[in-house]
Amino acid sequence: MGKITIVNYPPRDAWEELLRRPEGRGENLEKVCEAIFEEVRREGDAAALKYTWHFDRVRLDRLDVTEEEFEVADQAVSPALKEAILLAKGNIEAFHALQRPARRACEREDAHGFRCWQEARPIERVGLYVPGGSAPLFSTVLMLAVPARLAGCAEIGLCTPPGRDGKVHPAILWSARACGVTRVFKLGGVQAIAAMTFGTGSVGRVDKIFGPGNPFVTAAKQRASTLGVAIDLPAGPSELMVVADETADPRFVAADLLSQAEHGPDSQVFLVTREEELPARVEAEVERQLRALPRREVAEQALAASTCVVLRTREECVEMINRYAPEHLMLSVSDPAAWVPLVRHAGSVFLGHYSPESAGDYASGTNHTLPTGGYARACSGVSVESFMKRISFQEISPRGLAYLAPAIEVMAENEGLIAHRNAVRARVNRSLTEE
Amino acid sequence: MGKITIVNYPPRDAWEELLRRPEGRGENLEKVCEAIFEEVRREGDAAALKYTWHFDRVRLDRLDVTEEEFEVADQAVSPALKEAILLAKGNIEAFHALQRPARRACEREDAHGFRCWQEARPIERVGLYVPGGSAPLFSTVLMLAVPARLAGCAEIGLCTPPGRDGKVHPAILWSARACGVTRVFKLGGVQAIAAMTFGTGSVGRVDKIFGPGNPFVTAAKQRASTLGVAIDLPAGPSELMVVADETADPRFVAADLLSQAEHGPDSQVFLVTREEELPARVEAEVERQLRALPRREVAEQALAASTCVVLRTREECVEMINRYAPEHLMLSVSDPAAWVPLVRHAGSVFLGHYSPESAGDYASGTNHTLPTGGYARACSGVSVESFMKRISFQEISPRGLAYLAPAIEVMAENEGLIAHRNAVRARVNRSLTEE
Repeated sequence: MGKITIVNYPPRDAWEELLRRPEGRGENLEKVCEAIFEEVRREGDAAALKYTWHFDRVRLDRLDVTEEEFEVADQAVSPALKEAILLAKGNIEAFHALQRPARRACEREDAHGFRCWQEARPIERVGLYVPGGSAPLFSTVLMLAVPARLAGCAEIGLCTPPGRDGKVHPAILWSARACGVTRVFKLGGVQAIAAMTFGTGSVGRVDKIFGPGNPFVTAAKQRASTLGVAIDLPAGPSELMVVADETADPRFVAADLLSQAEHGPDSQVFLVTREEELPARVEAEVERQLRALPRREVAEQALAASTCVVLRTREECVEMINRYAPEHLMLSVSDPAAWVPLVRHAGSVFLGHYSPESAGDYASGTNHTLPTGGYARACSGVSVESFMKRISFQEISPRGLAYLAPAIEVMAENEGLIAHRNAVRARVNRSLTEE
Repeated sequence: MGKITIVNYPPRDAWEELLRRPEGRGENLEKVCEAIFEEVRREGDAAALKYTWHFDRVRLDRLDVTEEEFEVADQAVSPALKEAILLAKGNIEAFHALQRPARRACEREDAHGFRCWQEARPIERVGLYVPGGSAPLFSTVLMLAVPARLAGCAEIGLCTPPGRDGKVHPAILWSARACGVTRVFKLGGVQAIAAMTFGTGSVGRVDKIFGPGNPFVTAAKQRASTLGVAIDLPAGPSELMVVADETADPRFVAADLLSQAEHGPDSQVFLVTREEELPARVEAEVERQLRALPRREVAEQALAASTCVVLRTREECVEMINRYAPEHLMLSVSDPAAWVPLVRHAGSVFLGHYSPESAGDYASGTNHTLPTGGYARACSGVSVESFMKRISFQEISPRGLAYLAPAIEVMAENEGLIAHRNAVRARVNRSLTEE
């Protein structure tokens, strides 16, 4: 266990198999979602409380976190952790503030007498999901709530499963309060996504749901997306590809691979290099560092499905990056800037030997909610714009419409949409008779 | 038939029912999708050809449109239509070109020694879907292919169902060629979406699928989105809300309502006004204009499910707009600019009496692929950015990492992710020993 497979100079036709992602989602995910959604839609809070007992083994009499609980949390979080969270929050705010779109943009005035533009508006009601499980992911609270606030979302709800003691981890509550989350609910899993989709007595219906989760939560978000609610990203197991050259320190590379591997047994890590000697040295370091890790078993499982690939040329390394489209990409090379323009598909990229993925996971300011499973080919990570939408506007003068009219009329006729033509013709006729 | 319901001064608690959208999607949509997807995945082109015979009643021996067919289409499209398409294309290009993001954006350099930024990259392989059915929607080709080209997508495939004669409408082919579509396939419905999801011998696998379609196509796109392919928007029946004041011309308003109603029997139109007399006058105009419409039956069905609502105040009108979140909103009022900041949720907004929806559908330059079904609360219409994604980058110096390290270490420890902490600690230790 824990051994990473090393593959030297794989032929091109073996790449697809080599880069295959672990299969997820059984068919019964959807059945479970369907049943829970239906019950939450019908029964609201009662169903949410029932499933909290069923899955989280805790009986609650209310879902929302009370003011007293926030106060207790404030006492429970250490000053050192508060300071760390505030430093991270400051960097996340500073970087995300630059992402805010202009309220009015892309304005085009055509000399013939018409004008088009776009305006950005916040999504009004957003729901953030923060998984429970083995780690209290308060960092995810920052990564979702900070851009939501910057976007100007009016209602920012947060659902997270309670522990067996019926409580939410104090660092999650403290972070939520620090970042302007409106309300926090002790509710996890499919029942949380269903509650945000339909609204219950306690939980408000939202317009868009954000945040990571297990395969059930992902399936539930996908179901929500067919029911009038938007979702951020189809979240899957986390991934890291490290590209390392002869200047890379095997200790650093091993630490990075382990930091990804400890996320979960289904995490996937790759080392891509042209240095034939490096994989063995990294592997020795991995074994050494593994010994002291509390989440050693998790990491070992993930490493067992991971691979070090030795390739001959830089071009092949670049091709492998883009074939895989990793969520996280570390360029542990002496000349990372030269690689940047060659990276066509990735979620977040870390340049050089002193930019570990952990920095972006927590504190440098970039978002850690990123596309996995190859979705980096088509999707961006979460940003301020994920919490906004753009509306297009146009204003056409009588003269402008007279200019556009012949084209619109011919096109509408050829599409067989005569009422479309008429809507223009009625106006042009009147403006002609009035002139 | 064809009568629009008029509702005067509905109480607030009746609004939800009043604004209810027609229910779509039966459960068997998913079953049909699942079966066809599985067969296309397994059998590729053979399955695609089989289902083309099954649903479109035409036996093809190849799916891709040949060079000869493009030449025939070029002959078949009239010079007037070509000119109209080129005028529309010019405006769409000019407006969408303004939407192109900077290649490098949001750069932040922190004085402590780290730097974050984003870079935009085109989505490499995109698939456009253009429905068949009663209207040859070559305008949709412009609305999807123009931004795809501006974004820099390398492969732009287009699927559209063939007619009974085994051909694609010449205006669709001519527009596709004019807009730089790479390849066109005679393939529609679920089988087209499945082919773009998995790739077949002829049709290439894509990273993102765009375009409208019937409930089967929509369900198929949602299935694709669980299989590693992104989608543009969950498309539903088209919608228009017209807000009209005493300066509105009933002939124009009637023509606008009809232009939306002729799209399909499930289209939904609303007239919202404070003028008690207006609905009856609009209705009389609707009846008059309906008589001459080729798609009269379709429009009548849509109108039967449509409503004119009379409200007392402007605030109520604004609230109704935002409650409904219409795909298209016409502000047929004397002071449309005053309404603009009040519109919080809509796809595309048309200001004043000379900005009919048809203008934006075809030629003014805005996109007509817009969020329906209330998704305007959370989603934008299609833009150049829909064909791109953003990658985040960061570069941290040894000094910068030393600054961030304490925060990262405390946070990682509190999340129980010790390997995350170690990835930072290993580096800081080394940089300390080297100094």
